[in-house]
Amino acid sequence: MKETTEIQEKLKTLRQLMQEKHIDAYLVLSSDYHGSEYVGSHFKCREYISGFTGSAGSVIVTKSAACLWTDGRYFLQAEQELKGSGITLYRMGEEDVPEMENYLLEYLEEHAQLGIDGRTISVSAYRKLEKKLNKKKIHICAGLDLIGDMWEDRPKMSCEAAWELDICYAGKTRAEKLLEIQKELKKKNADTTIISSLDDIAWTLNVRGGDTECTPVVLSFLIISREQVTWFVQKEAADQKLIENFRTNGIVIREYHEFYEYLSKELQAHVLYLDPERTSQFLYEKAKECSKTVLEGHNVTMIPKAVKNAVEIENMRKAHKKDAAACIKFIYWLKMQMQKNTLSKAERNPDNDFITEISAAEKLEEFRKEQKNYLGASFKTISGYARHGAIVHYSANENTDIQLKPENMILVDSGGQYLEGTTDITRTIALGSLSWKQKHHYTLVLKGNLRLAGAKFKYGCAGINLDHMAREALWKEGFDYNHGTGHGVGYLLNVHEPPNSFRSLVSDSRYECMKLEAGMITSNEPGIYIEGEYGIRLENLILCEEAEKNEYGKFMKFETLTLVPFERDAILIQELDENEKEWLNQYHARVFEEISGELEKEEREWLAKVTAPL
Amino acid sequence: MKETTEIQEKLKTLRQLMQEKHIDAYLVLSSDYHGSEYVGSHFKCREYISGFTGSAGSVIVTKSAACLWTDGRYFLQAEQELKGSGITLYRMGEEDVPEMENYLLEYLEEHAQLGIDGRTISVSAYRKLEKKLNKKKIHICAGLDLIGDMWEDRPKMSCEAAWELDICYAGKTRAEKLLEIQKELKKKNADTTIISSLDDIAWTLNVRGGDTECTPVVLSFLIISREQVTWFVQKEAADQKLIENFRTNGIVIREYHEFYEYLSKELQAHVLYLDPERTSQFLYEKAKECSKTVLEGHNVTMIPKAVKNAVEIENMRKAHKKDAAACIKFIYWLKMQMQKNTLSKAERNPDNDFITEISAAEKLEEFRKEQKNYLGASFKTISGYARHGAIVHYSANENTDIQLKPENMILVDSGGQYLEGTTDITRTIALGSLSWKQKHHYTLVLKGNLRLAGAKFKYGCAGINLDHMAREALWKEGFDYNHGTGHGVGYLLNVHEPPNSFRSLVSDSRYECMKLEAGMITSNEPGIYIEGEYGIRLENLILCEEAEKNEYGKFMKFETLTLVPFERDAILIQELDENEKEWLNQYHARVFEEISGELEKEEREWLAKVTAPL
Repeated sequence: MKETTEIQEKLKTLRQLMQEKHIDAYLVLSSDYHGSEYVGSHFKCREYISGFTGSAGSVIVTKSAACLWTDGRYFLQAEQELKGSGITLYRMGEEDVPEMENYLLEYLEEHAQLGIDGRTISVSAYRKLEKKLNKKKIHICAGLDLIGDMWEDRPKMSCEAAWELDICYAGKTRAEKLLEIQKELKKKNADTTIISSLDDIAWTLNVRGGDTECTPVVLSFLIISREQVTWFVQKEAADQKLIENFRTNGIVIREYHEFYEYLSKELQAHVLYLDPERTSQFLYEKAKECSKTVLEGHNVTMIPKAVKNAVEIENMRKAHKKDAAACIKFIYWLKMQMQKNTLSKAERNPDNDFITEISAAEKLEEFRKEQKNYLGASFKTISGYARHGAIVHYSANENTDIQLKPENMILVDSGGQYLEGTTDITRTIALGSLSWKQKHHYTLVLKGNLRLAGAKFKYGCAGINLDHMAREALWKEGFDYNHGTGHGVGYLLNVHEPPNSFRSLVSDSRYECMKLEAGMITSNEPGIYIEGEYGIRLENLILCEEAEKNEYGKFMKFETLTLVPFERDAILIQELDENEKEWLNQYHARVFEEISGELEKEEREWLAKVTAPL
Repeated sequence: MKETTEIQEKLKTLRQLMQEKHIDAYLVLSSDYHGSEYVGSHFKCREYISGFTGSAGSVIVTKSAACLWTDGRYFLQAEQELKGSGITLYRMGEEDVPEMENYLLEYLEEHAQLGIDGRTISVSAYRKLEKKLNKKKIHICAGLDLIGDMWEDRPKMSCEAAWELDICYAGKTRAEKLLEIQKELKKKNADTTIISSLDDIAWTLNVRGGDTECTPVVLSFLIISREQVTWFVQKEAADQKLIENFRTNGIVIREYHEFYEYLSKELQAHVLYLDPERTSQFLYEKAKECSKTVLEGHNVTMIPKAVKNAVEIENMRKAHKKDAAACIKFIYWLKMQMQKNTLSKAERNPDNDFITEISAAEKLEEFRKEQKNYLGASFKTISGYARHGAIVHYSANENTDIQLKPENMILVDSGGQYLEGTTDITRTIALGSLSWKQKHHYTLVLKGNLRLAGAKFKYGCAGINLDHMAREALWKEGFDYNHGTGHGVGYLLNVHEPPNSFRSLVSDSRYECMKLEAGMITSNEPGIYIEGEYGIRLENLILCEEAEKNEYGKFMKFETLTLVPFERDAILIQELDENEKEWLNQYHARVFEEISGELEKEEREWLAKVTAPL
């Protein structure tokens, strides 16, 4: 056994830097400078310092200790990756495991110094931390990048080509969008807004790129003043044509790395408008220093981006048709493979003999790739067979991957990025015959999905009001799922897009308390997770629409965009009420009508069977 | 016609005072110094200056104008009462009627001075107003009482005898309650809390009185420090025995009028804790001036008061049995009277010939008075026949009172104060045969009531999550009601008690986002209002209880406390689903079982019929 590992060496170096800067504890987060959910390798400081490669986790290094906080989906992986590093794993959510903030409060002395790269923490997260640490007058130094200082072979920032999204996909020109934003700024008595979140920038400018995993965005900052728009982007990412088109719209392009310097120099007399949820603490402090006033509020792009326009909606319907074809082909293929698995060895095709969670996910990706204008996955597919299905954010890797057998169920949660929009779908597929209990559980989840999908509600309602509908059938029997019922979905952007969501608890951001508007697209994904046995989640995307207007007000409803049949063999028909049965039959009829034309003969025949009225 | 009226004279005097004090506009609100919903005559400044006697309304007087804002239930009354006063009526909620704050913003010039008695506005309401007026840098002077200065024959403050609530009703001694409050203060790092809200004081001290209408509380302030408790009360209200008992508990009693002076002198080194929703701006400013720090949060009494203890719950059940007996007797009586009305003149008893909304309400009050330990109404009964039932907060007076006929429906919303607790019930009673439409509407409202009553939900849910259940059946058909579904109810205290409530929209106080705890009692009162025809509201009080605990968490349910049958003749059985039917049959069986023993023979026979299984 090695006496010291590479990680231990790195921690030693970091502690030297900490000592030089008089830092008692250093906090390393997982984010980039734009609050992205998925980040490029340049930003993987937490992975560099800890060796832990999962997508979520934070590290605290003190003079004598180093600890990693991560959530349930990564416990196993983190254990393995941290071995020999000397880093202690804190399993978030487990009993007696202190929260990170409380750990700091416990460990650090009064007036201690906590270091952090302020570019990697949002203003609101920073304030929460600050408030907590204030109890012991602990000071936060947010202007450090100690990992950057010591990381010799740090990968460069991604710099993929930026490309313009055609108006036939975007539905609205960037000139129109900018004009609306500028109007909104005027209303708010602000001169200028600075947008850091990459999806907001991409949406505003009708531009896409490839700088983060799963989300086709461009690393950049955007400053919109009432008279001027400046885009800070790595210049190699923008070709001549794009630059010229932008110039025509009066948009000045500047180098990404000049951003903070520009801030200090150019915005001195400005009233700035910033979103504390989507702006880094570092940027906020700079802005405070250099501007006249800083006003706070949600990004002015948040609602117009979330409310899809008519062109985006029509495209989203198309994207979902293509995605449904791929998913149905996949389900058919999987079912056929499982049938073969029940044949004698002599009849079987040895190539298909061995299907695992990962190989199944790859097959699904193949079917998606056959679809026109498919650009890639919108997030890493969750493919959880049997007991793995019960791990909500399960991510199969070579150590956990298991073979699929013609029994039990597999939960597949996946999505695609198409020029016509972003998809996100979960189906739980029976690979063999199911027990009554399995069917009963499937039916409970289905009831939740159908009830929310069929909701009619007063305009003014938010996700917080409706979440209950998806859980009611489960709650009645004492079940629940430990995640939200739904999240907003972007247009060829983030698969998790605020603010629309269905949640039962009020969060810090209060997004779930914001009213649902016609044009918002949200996921509808109740689930049930039986530890050690199986997990069931059923997810469709639903589009909010106006239903009717009368003397009592305006009423809203949903259109289900996802068009993939539910698992016929898993439904206990007698447990559905008449409304649910009718809704399901109509949905299945729609699936057949809209998707059958995209399928091969055998697939179509199969689809006809599984979508026939119950 | 008189040239000038008494009100015009008063306005003239007020304007002189305004001029002396350099006040451009003076705002007169309806509240006392304790944020009470119902106030004594001493506090009726708005009535004094305007002549308008309704319970809700605000007056603004400027150099050239005087205006009253009130809501729908008072439009008619206000019109009549304001005649000849020169005061303009602003009908709140009607189109093109500006909100009061916007009127001020429109009318007043930059840097104008608005006067107000800061004792009559809560800190949070004041801040909202201040924020709005800040746009024109309008200054608010909150230290004035110009009405008080000019009101020569102002009634004295009410000074009814305070009395102690026996432990067999309160369930917890004041010593225990004070100890818990002091512990809570320590947790919050506060030295002292000042409680202004009369129900919080009455709850804490196990004391009741008679200083406000409908709520048996004592005009007072309460200061709880970690070592000392001081009650500021009008000394004539407390008899020797009470004073001695309080002294035994270490509570110092001081004169009500010494309160503000005491504040300035005695709390200088204190960290104060105040509730901005239930503290007046005037008190808050004093507290800021004289203390070390002011911390803000909900009154520490709010949750323990809302979460009824086991004794209170057992008593509440008893109170509801008595209240149910009175209501059932009333409904039976009313039905019998209506039957007689269909007889020929010769057969009729002329005394009963003429029943009106008001006389019916009086009859109900008679039945309540027959019950043991009944102290009075918990609010002014709403008795709305036919089209008047569609006016949500209808309050019959001699001008609007109408005769009941053996047709259509009457909506009766009433409640009582018993030593065993507070009740609040609405029933809509058919006085003759109903149309299909009327029955259909009744059934929709009933479905909402039953669904919420039968809810099972995860611990952590708040009213905002569940409100939807009561509205879903109505929303499906494009109906809605323009009020919350429910409010908390106190124990022999406020009939509207925060924080528990069912609402679909997030309010400024965010009470509806606070989780429902076992022991909270809330009303469940969906409705439908068909303008010009009839109104239907069905209200029961429901007690939150724990249902079960398992690996998915803790689940909650409701027990319905109110025990009065729904209107059998108004229910379309075929529109109820199996769950609803079963729930209703069980409820009616419970009503008969628990209440039949309290009734006369004919009443009992009638109850048996109307509670028989559907």
